[in-house]
Amino acid sequence: MNNGWPEEYYAVIFTSQRTDAEMELYGLTSERMIELAQQQPGFLGLEAVREENGLGITVSYWRDRDAIAAWRDHAEHKVAQKIGRQEFYSWFQLRIAKVIDERSFGLEDL
Amino acid sequence: MNNGWPEEYYAVIFTSQRTDAEMELYGLTSERMIELAQQQPGFLGLEAVREENGLGITVSYWRDRDAIAAWRDHAEHKVAQKIGRQEFYSWFQLRIAKVIDERSFGLEDL
Repeated sequence: MNNGWPEEYYAVIFTSQRTDAEMELYGLTSERMIELAQQQPGFLGLEAVREENGLGITVSYWRDRDAIAAWRDHAEHKVAQKIGRQEFYSWFQLRIAKVIDERSFGLEDL
Repeated sequence: MNNGWPEEYYAVIFTSQRTDAEMELYGLTSERMIELAQQQPGFLGLEAVREENGLGITVSYWRDRDAIAAWRDHAEHKVAQKIGRQEFYSWFQLRIAKVIDERSFGLEDL
């Protein structure tokens, strides 16, 4: 069911509104952060969706809170966070949540 | 900080892939479900984003697990869930998670 994910794991729900600024830099930074996140210990997976109007939700999944804290404090990620506040996002909301139940449909067939 | 939300609350993360089928029925059903969800006891909020390619993430927030279970079992919602499996979604993944930390940026100014 869980593709080798641990029984217990955590979600980071990042809801954000992009500005119109720095399109190219945003694209590069966003790609790089996804690549970097995937290399972090405890990273499990990531889902990201953004509409044309700039509203986006990114959910990343992690083994434990230490892994989330280590990624938050990653030096290159911290630089990206700073640019995020200054340029990329007019607002965002970030929530850390412990996954306690799940079900899926149609994924067995993929 | 929390706009009157309780200290403890839960997120339902619904990640889904739309088919190309039943565009109009999907629009109507989706609107109706959002309207209905907002009327349920314990409903706190909802964020929904879907890309042109049909990949979507909807996160709804609830006071407790009983509220989530009651919404899952709501008669009209159950009908929509059935059509969802048959027509609207090629796959979906649903996770229930307890929010344990949060922070935001830029929302104070809105």
